[in-house]
Amino acid sequence: MSTLGTVYLVGAGPGAPDLLTVRAARLLERADIVFHDALVHPDTLALAVRAIKIPVGKRCGRHSTAQHFINKQLIDAAHRHAVVVRLKGGDPMIFGRSQEELDALESAGIEAEVVPGITAALAAAAQLRISLTRRGVSRSVTFATPRVGAGKDATDWSAAIRPADSAAIYMGANEAEKVMAALLAGGHAGDTPVMLCESASLPQWQAIGGKLRQLPQLTAQLGGGPALILVGAVFTDARQARSETRLASPARALTGR
Amino acid sequence: MSTLGTVYLVGAGPGAPDLLTVRAARLLERADIVFHDALVHPDTLALAVRAIKIPVGKRCGRHSTAQHFINKQLIDAAHRHAVVVRLKGGDPMIFGRSQEELDALESAGIEAEVVPGITAALAAAAQLRISLTRRGVSRSVTFATPRVGAGKDATDWSAAIRPADSAAIYMGANEAEKVMAALLAGGHAGDTPVMLCESASLPQWQAIGGKLRQLPQLTAQLGGGPALILVGAVFTDARQARSETRLASPARALTGR
Repeated sequence: MSTLGTVYLVGAGPGAPDLLTVRAARLLERADIVFHDALVHPDTLALAVRAIKIPVGKRCGRHSTAQHFINKQLIDAAHRHAVVVRLKGGDPMIFGRSQEELDALESAGIEAEVVPGITAALAAAAQLRISLTRRGVSRSVTFATPRVGAGKDATDWSAAIRPADSAAIYMGANEAEKVMAALLAGGHAGDTPVMLCESASLPQWQAIGGKLRQLPQLTAQLGGGPALILVGAVFTDARQARSETRLASPARALTGR
Repeated sequence: MSTLGTVYLVGAGPGAPDLLTVRAARLLERADIVFHDALVHPDTLALAVRAIKIPVGKRCGRHSTAQHFINKQLIDAAHRHAVVVRLKGGDPMIFGRSQEELDALESAGIEAEVVPGITAALAAAAQLRISLTRRGVSRSVTFATPRVGAGKDATDWSAAIRPADSAAIYMGANEAEKVMAALLAGGHAGDTPVMLCESASLPQWQAIGGKLRQLPQLTAQLGGGPALILVGAVFTDARQARSETRLASPARALTGR
């Protein structure tokens, strides 16, 4: 017990293996054991040449290992290995449930460090070439999720999303009716620009642009990849206009570059 | 004119050179010319071994090159070089004024790509080991700035920041009175937890925790590095308690690790 390892909570980024940070890549190379989300790219995992690799569930909660069991696995691993990596899709500190793991590690007296990652909203903005903030249009951007957490009113998730600024809604594409209703109730107009960005940074990425009132029809066109719902005036521009034009003919808009 | 180059808008991340993405590092190695913000780390710039390096101003607007002149420089460079990099602190799509550059490049018929970077709020969360979202506490996080943009009411910048959730305020530490007044007017209590994080990811980083009503006194303790104001219930915890304890004795809290 005198030679406890360190647990690194590492952001794997949005999907493309080269959107990992240099620090994360080096840590994976040194890792003895890696506990990873199911959505992490195989080429990213392959960087962990020495490590035992243990899948511990998807980001969206489907079929995921119970959080308390993941916490226990991390603590146990730190008693046997020097470099323990917990690899999460995107950034660990944005909808990554990292606090539970950090608190459990601290309680167990185990050193923890966090290595940030590119969160999906940044990857989507880069892919679409649409800035999330813009002088004279949007001075703030909010990342929110309709997923319900314990102890929190299920109706207030959208209150931080203002009609005047930009928003990225995580894990909401499967609940398009609920998302649309919440935003309309919060003061968004039905013709507020929205854009879906699926599998940002991966070869199969696609974007689908439209208006808030069309959200359920737009999400019906998504494939099975993780998708963000982007909302706000910055998503009205030439790129969106092109996307809407393409939407009118084939089923998919703006696929690839 | 037939062999136009490509302009890459690249996020340099928060400061630490190894928090650059692998893609950004490879692009810098290939770059013919790099136009960079003044705050980019010298070791990051040093990756651009072949490139002409041209500083074009700070992120906060002080002494910065006029935006239209930067646009023109990028366009001119794409007529002379194959790989043109515009290197920005943090992420290009969060308070990076990238849309002006992307629109100018598109108008000039020049190909542009965006490579995302770790924005300061993600680096601060990692450094502090405090998740920006947390089940049962915060279901959204807002990035906002009090800096005024053209055509926008100067008073509404803080409206997207809700008392119930997390916020990261960029470029606000020099306007602490204004930030405090806006948040109090928007419904935040005077004892809302706040945390300043200066130079996140760099060796000289520091965090200073306290309450919203103390914000001007807290910002007076900052050094000259870029600082984020973090606001919300997630910033109340063991780490903040430790920080406040240290605050009581020496001037600086939680310096380094």
